[in-house]
Amino acid sequence: MSTKLSGNMLIAQSGGPTAVINQSLIGAVLEAKKHAQIQEIYGSLHGIQGILDENLINLKMETEETLEEVAQTPSSALGSVRRKPTPEDCATIFQRLEKYNVRFFFYIGGNDSAETAHIISEEAKKAEYDLHCFHICKTIDNDLRENDHTPGFGSAGKFVAQAFMGDDLDNRALGGVKINVVMGRHAGFLTAASALARTHEDDGPHLIYLPERPFAINRFIEDVEKTVQKHGRCVIAVSEGISDAQGTPIVVKGATTKEVDSHGNVQLSGTGALGDILSAEIKAKTAITRVRADTFGYIQRSFAGCISETDAKEAHGVGATAVKEAIAGTRDGSIAIKRKDGEKYSVEFTRVPLENVAGHTKHMPDSFINKDNNNVTPAFIHYATPIVGKLPTIGKLKAIPVEKS
Amino acid sequence: MSTKLSGNMLIAQSGGPTAVINQSLIGAVLEAKKHAQIQEIYGSLHGIQGILDENLINLKMETEETLEEVAQTPSSALGSVRRKPTPEDCATIFQRLEKYNVRFFFYIGGNDSAETAHIISEEAKKAEYDLHCFHICKTIDNDLRENDHTPGFGSAGKFVAQAFMGDDLDNRALGGVKINVVMGRHAGFLTAASALARTHEDDGPHLIYLPERPFAINRFIEDVEKTVQKHGRCVIAVSEGISDAQGTPIVVKGATTKEVDSHGNVQLSGTGALGDILSAEIKAKTAITRVRADTFGYIQRSFAGCISETDAKEAHGVGATAVKEAIAGTRDGSIAIKRKDGEKYSVEFTRVPLENVAGHTKHMPDSFINKDNNNVTPAFIHYATPIVGKLPTIGKLKAIPVEKS
Repeated sequence: MSTKLSGNMLIAQSGGPTAVINQSLIGAVLEAKKHAQIQEIYGSLHGIQGILDENLINLKMETEETLEEVAQTPSSALGSVRRKPTPEDCATIFQRLEKYNVRFFFYIGGNDSAETAHIISEEAKKAEYDLHCFHICKTIDNDLRENDHTPGFGSAGKFVAQAFMGDDLDNRALGGVKINVVMGRHAGFLTAASALARTHEDDGPHLIYLPERPFAINRFIEDVEKTVQKHGRCVIAVSEGISDAQGTPIVVKGATTKEVDSHGNVQLSGTGALGDILSAEIKAKTAITRVRADTFGYIQRSFAGCISETDAKEAHGVGATAVKEAIAGTRDGSIAIKRKDGEKYSVEFTRVPLENVAGHTKHMPDSFINKDNNNVTPAFIHYATPIVGKLPTIGKLKAIPVEKS
Repeated sequence: MSTKLSGNMLIAQSGGPTAVINQSLIGAVLEAKKHAQIQEIYGSLHGIQGILDENLINLKMETEETLEEVAQTPSSALGSVRRKPTPEDCATIFQRLEKYNVRFFFYIGGNDSAETAHIISEEAKKAEYDLHCFHICKTIDNDLRENDHTPGFGSAGKFVAQAFMGDDLDNRALGGVKINVVMGRHAGFLTAASALARTHEDDGPHLIYLPERPFAINRFIEDVEKTVQKHGRCVIAVSEGISDAQGTPIVVKGATTKEVDSHGNVQLSGTGALGDILSAEIKAKTAITRVRADTFGYIQRSFAGCISETDAKEAHGVGATAVKEAIAGTRDGSIAIKRKDGEKYSVEFTRVPLENVAGHTKHMPDSFINKDNNNVTPAFIHYATPIVGKLPTIGKLKAIPVEKS
C-alpha cells in the first residue's frame, strides 16, 4: 500500500469511558486539521457500531471552542461500544470506509479496542483496502502492555486517592471497618492508587487487596483483626477483580447469574455485591460491630471535576501522535506512553505494533506488591505519584491532650 | 444564671461527618480566641464520649496555620459519635465540665446532636450548672427545621451533581439503565441535588425518587420503561431512604438483619443492597439488558477536593455566630441559616430555640416535587443552585450528521 495516502479520517471511541478520553479525541482532531492529506474528519458514534450503521458525524464542523470544552469533559463524546468485529463486520466496515473514502482510522480504547483495531488492520490487508489504522491507548485499569501507564488512569487514580483521603478521615471519626471496592478488572493499579491518599503515619487504607494475588477469606479476616488491634479501626481497598486461588472472581462466586460481553469479559462493576460479601464475612467471623462497604462504581472513571493535569495532557498527546504517525506514512500501530529515564518525570509517545497490545492484560509487577500481599510498596508510590498529580492538603490537629486534673 | 459567664469553652462534633464540619469548628475557635470571657478552649474527642472519658485536647495550642488547614479538610477533626446522653451521662458530664471550669459548650451536628445539646441544656438547668449551651447546625441530609439549608448539604450536593454529570455522560456512551443511590436518610434534598447535573435537554437524571413519596416497584418499572422508550437509556437518582406506603424502607425489606443506633436510626448506608434490589427488579420485569447500580456511599459526605465555597463560608459563619451569641449572654440555642428575601442569594445566621430543631426531621416541601412523584420542580433548582455553587462546564459536540451517501 502507499505510505502517503490521502483521504478522509474516521475516529471512534470504544470500551469504558474515562475522564480524559475526549482529550485524545480532540488531540487527534486538532492535529488532523493541520494536514492537507486529511480532508474530512468523521466521528463514528458508538465505536465500530457507528460505521456498520452509517452513523457518522462531521467533526470538522465543530468550533474550536466546542472542541476545547469537549476535551475537558469526561466520558466518550462519540459514545462507546463493546463489540469485537467478526470477518463479516469487517467486510461491511471496508465497504463503508470506501464509500466515505476513509484512509485514516483511529480507535481510542483499551486492550479490547486494540484487538478490534488489530483485526481491522489485518482484515484490511487481506481485503487490500489501503488504510492507516491506529489504536490510541486509554484505560483507567492501566493494564495495557508496552505502556508505562495509560491515559485515564491518572484521573481515576486521583479520584480514588481523594475518595480514600476523605473516607479515611470519616472512618477515623466514627470507627469500625470500612471496605471500598475499586475498579480495575484483573489489574490492581487503580486499587493501589488508594495508597496515595496516605499523608500521615496511621492513615488508611491500611490494607490493599489486588487481583494479582489470590484472595483467601481467612487470611483477610486475620489481616483485618490485626489492623483493628493496632489502629482501633481499619480502612480497606479491594479490587473488584480479586479472585480465589483457582482464579474465580470472589464477586462471581457470590452471584447467581453472570453477564459476559463479546470480548468474553465478565461483569464485575455496577453492583455492590463484593463489598456486601466481604462485609458479611467480617460481621460473621469477628466481634467487630461497625462494618461498612462502598463500591466506588462508575463515577470513579467519569466524575466531572476531578482530572489529573498530567493525565489530560498525555491523553491529548497520544491522540495527536497517532495522527502524526499516520501522516508520516506508518501503516498501523498503537500509540504507547513510555517513561523516560531521569530524576524528573517525563514521557514520550511511541508507536508500537498492534499485536503487542491487542487483547493482552498487563498486571502489577511484583516489585509494587508487599510480601504479605496486602499492601503496595514504596516503588509503586514512586511510580504513581507523578501520574496522579497534585492532591488536596489534609490538615491534622496536633491534638495536645488536656492533662486530667 | 448569670448571663455573662466567664470560664473555659468545650466544643465537639457529633453524627455523620461532612466536608465542611471543620469550618464550623474552626469558625467557633477563632471567634472564641477574640474574647477574654473565654479562657481555655477544649476539644472533646468523639462528641460527648470524650467528656465522659476525659479525652480532651487543647485547641488554643494549635497554630493558625494548622487551624486554617483543618478548616479546609473534610470529616470531623475531633472525631464523632452517635450517642444520646442518659440522665446518668449528664450527671457525669456536669462533674467533668465543672472540674475543667467549662461554661461554654458547643455541639456541632444534625438533629440528633441538637437533641443531645437540648438534653444537656435542660439537665444543666435542673442541676443548676451554669452553662452556655449551643448546637451548631450541620448535616448533608439538609433536614433540620428552622434552617433554609444546613452546612454540609452544599458540598455533598456538589459531589452528587458532579457525579451525575459524569455518570450521565457515561450512560449516554454505553446505554442501558443506571441507578445511583444517594444518602439523605428520610429527606430527599441530597438526592434531589442530582438534578443540578442537567445542563442539556435530554441530560439525566431522568427519574428522581425521594423518601417524601411512597415508593411502588410497579410504578418505578413503568417510569423506567417509558424513559428508555423516550431517550433510549435511563439514569435514575434514588434516595437511600425510599420506603413503601407503610413507611418501611425498601432496603430494610430486602435485608435479613438491621442495625440501629442509640437515637433509633436504622442503618441505610454502607451497603449496595438497595441498588442491587432495584436493579434485579428491572432485569426481572423488563427486557432491558444493561442495568447497573452504584451507591455513592460515604464518599459523598467526605470527599476531599469537592467543596462548595458558599457552604464552606456558611459553615464557618454558624460556628462563629454560636460563640458570639454565647458571649452576648444568650443561655442556649441552635444556630440556624435563614435565607434573606431579595433577588440575590444571601443568608443570615440566627439563634433559634433548641427544642425547635432537636430530634425533628424537615422534609422536602411539596413545591419541590413534581406531580408524578418522580422528579423535582424548577422551584427546587432555584433553591439549591446558589447553595451548591459553581459546577464544571460540560462540553457537547454539535454532532452534525454526515449525509448518508
